[in-house]
Amino acid sequence: MTQPLPTNPIPGTRDFFPEEMSVRMQVFEKLYRVIESYGYLRYDGPMLEPIDLYAAKSSEEIVAHQTYVMKDRGDRTLVVRPEMTPTVARMIAAKSGSLSMPARWYSHPNLWRYERKQRGRYREHWQVNVDLFGTESWEAEAEMFEILGDMMFALGAKADDFFIRVSDRALMKAALRAVADVPDDKALDVFGVIDRMAKVPPEETRRALGELGFDPDKVLSVFSVGDPLVEFPKILTAELLASSKAWRVVTQWKEHAAPSLRELRVTFDPTVVRGFTYYTSTVFELYDASPENPRSIAGGGRYDDLVGLFGKPRTPGIGFGMGDVTLIDFLHTHGIAPAPRVAPDATVLALDEGSRAEVKRIAALLREAGLRTTTPLETKKLGKALERASKEGVRFAVIAAPAELSRGAVKLKDLVRSDEREVSIAELAASMRRALDALEVAP
Amino acid sequence: MTQPLPTNPIPGTRDFFPEEMSVRMQVFEKLYRVIESYGYLRYDGPMLEPIDLYAAKSSEEIVAHQTYVMKDRGDRTLVVRPEMTPTVARMIAAKSGSLSMPARWYSHPNLWRYERKQRGRYREHWQVNVDLFGTESWEAEAEMFEILGDMMFALGAKADDFFIRVSDRALMKAALRAVADVPDDKALDVFGVIDRMAKVPPEETRRALGELGFDPDKVLSVFSVGDPLVEFPKILTAELLASSKAWRVVTQWKEHAAPSLRELRVTFDPTVVRGFTYYTSTVFELYDASPENPRSIAGGGRYDDLVGLFGKPRTPGIGFGMGDVTLIDFLHTHGIAPAPRVAPDATVLALDEGSRAEVKRIAALLREAGLRTTTPLETKKLGKALERASKEGVRFAVIAAPAELSRGAVKLKDLVRSDEREVSIAELAASMRRALDALEVAP
Repeated sequence: MTQPLPTNPIPGTRDFFPEEMSVRMQVFEKLYRVIESYGYLRYDGPMLEPIDLYAAKSSEEIVAHQTYVMKDRGDRTLVVRPEMTPTVARMIAAKSGSLSMPARWYSHPNLWRYERKQRGRYREHWQVNVDLFGTESWEAEAEMFEILGDMMFALGAKADDFFIRVSDRALMKAALRAVADVPDDKALDVFGVIDRMAKVPPEETRRALGELGFDPDKVLSVFSVGDPLVEFPKILTAELLASSKAWRVVTQWKEHAAPSLRELRVTFDPTVVRGFTYYTSTVFELYDASPENPRSIAGGGRYDDLVGLFGKPRTPGIGFGMGDVTLIDFLHTHGIAPAPRVAPDATVLALDEGSRAEVKRIAALLREAGLRTTTPLETKKLGKALERASKEGVRFAVIAAPAELSRGAVKLKDLVRSDEREVSIAELAASMRRALDALEVAP
Repeated sequence: MTQPLPTNPIPGTRDFFPEEMSVRMQVFEKLYRVIESYGYLRYDGPMLEPIDLYAAKSSEEIVAHQTYVMKDRGDRTLVVRPEMTPTVARMIAAKSGSLSMPARWYSHPNLWRYERKQRGRYREHWQVNVDLFGTESWEAEAEMFEILGDMMFALGAKADDFFIRVSDRALMKAALRAVADVPDDKALDVFGVIDRMAKVPPEETRRALGELGFDPDKVLSVFSVGDPLVEFPKILTAELLASSKAWRVVTQWKEHAAPSLRELRVTFDPTVVRGFTYYTSTVFELYDASPENPRSIAGGGRYDDLVGLFGKPRTPGIGFGMGDVTLIDFLHTHGIAPAPRVAPDATVLALDEGSRAEVKRIAALLREAGLRTTTPLETKKLGKALERASKEGVRFAVIAAPAELSRGAVKLKDLVRSDEREVSIAELAASMRRALDALEVAP
């Protein structure tokens, strides 16, 4: 190797240096806590899966054009997973019969899609997945939206900063049949055209609908009704509307949700169709209210038939994914992204060679108390070491020197407040912890 | 698709169902805390990397025979990363000049190697990586072993349960030269034979050394000296030994380490060679003291020339990886694996239809307080719901009923202790938290 190796990651991917990683970790740890507070259990599966898992019911576009595919050394065709739902359905099917239902599960996989390169688009992202199995109750839909709302609130968002759009493929199929003579087995093709509608010129959408054999005006009228809550009862039977979980959760949201979540904006929007084939009825997306981020932050739906594909009894499922890219864009847009935490809390230094043995003992005490503590790796003059710690943003320098050590104490320098005092070693960790906590709650 | 899809993951991989995942999460969260207490910052990079990154200096065996390789849709040859060191070296090189040194970084990547199928061997694992850049001081070696020791202690291991074996490729090169006439540029080939020694019959090792052109007896004598601390000073100069960081950290461990870590077993062992080409001097491995687990739990070394391969100034580096498979085997062998935590803390139930509105409000309060809380998705008789919660291991059932609600209270049923009392809603979360904490510290 005479040619130096390139230092950049492959196209469409990101290196997470500690500053970015600290933001990602803080954001997702808040989300884990919310999701777990609803009783969801974390799971994980391998990031390579057989291609058949997706070919069955995922999205033709993704499988044929966007997967990272390989033959392994045993001649199996594997893909880097482009989404998590087929994996979780496979796992639920594997335990069919022994799992107690409902099952509430979540995960945080790394997902890959070979998308065309464009600004703000990546080929890999980290996506939290939240799924609920074993119930056809509309309370499952309500729980999904409650979790989404609490996730956003936990990150500091306000109810006005985002909204959830909900639709129901079963209702839309019925409406397409009633208004545009679309037979049920062609509805998915129509949804496919509608899913791409926002990304292509209007003529292209009309042409595609015409090619499917339908009247574009009639089809489009179904997706652009004024207020669906007013217009749909004119096209669809009351019985059909009442049977729709999406319809019910949207129309009853304000009475039904926990008081802290009633202000969430949850609306019925026929243009939400989602790309995956496996969704059977409810589909939903969460969007930034700011037009700066037009891509959905989270999306999901109900997939009542997916587990059955594994030859196991039908097990209804509903879930959503929320990826790091659009979510962190949202946080930056609204000024609520957490600040990176990359400086140690403390560094322990020796005034002289004779005090060096004490340094490791004191550092061990601080670490034991959860303080992020470094000790010097090379012998440096104290002044230089302090200067360096200060530049790195270290909060405290602890100085072990014979005079104080003889009294069981050290010098504690607060490098942010520039003060210095003697503190007994026994009280050192608690004293530093108090000062750190005080800084954190300060504005 | 008439054929049902298989429910098993691909060969050599694992599904982490919630019970296993809970163990994995608890174990690694303890490790993150220790590593961060030493001031290490988490980073991450993409799990697909160009094959050239490994071809340069990794391990020929891994690159040629064990990688998961693919051509992406842009005709790049990518591999699923088999190890993390090349990625972290690439990232450090990318920031060369702007990073303040020493840099302390850690990560927890998913790594893949296509190994031959055998019991206890997997093709993917999760490995914590800890790396320290920018110093040639032997204090870096000491810090690696201190972190390893504290990681094991944090998991409940005792100093007798494991040991660290250390060697130094530079010393071993000198010894091979002195004793067996092995020129420096052939030493890596000899290390390769020694690395496989434990897995093949003795004749095969002797034959391989002979084929390299060396006297097997002489070569093997270097790796099987009685006590290296006694024998090596007879073969090698005092100056050479004094310049070895591995030698120094082993011989000075008991005086130098923090008092809590002095009992760690850190020994010099010439048979530790490690498979990667990039290690320049110190190499080390951590082993279970129980013969049940003969494979290393962690391993690493110093790679002072790796960052330079990216056309950037030489930046010394040292680090190690610790994978989930052998580590969790170790914990089970010693009876210290954490118990899975998969039951919710509480479920909130309504006695009658009229109290259902209160259920979500109370659940929201409990979740806010960090209690993992479910609410029913389907209307069930109270008795059935309680029976189910009890079976699932839920600790508390909170029952909203008109009589108590009129007093601002609920019934709190402790399903483990089988007692029931009225608790005011305002005090509910704190009261449950106390009971949960009490159970946790109980033997």
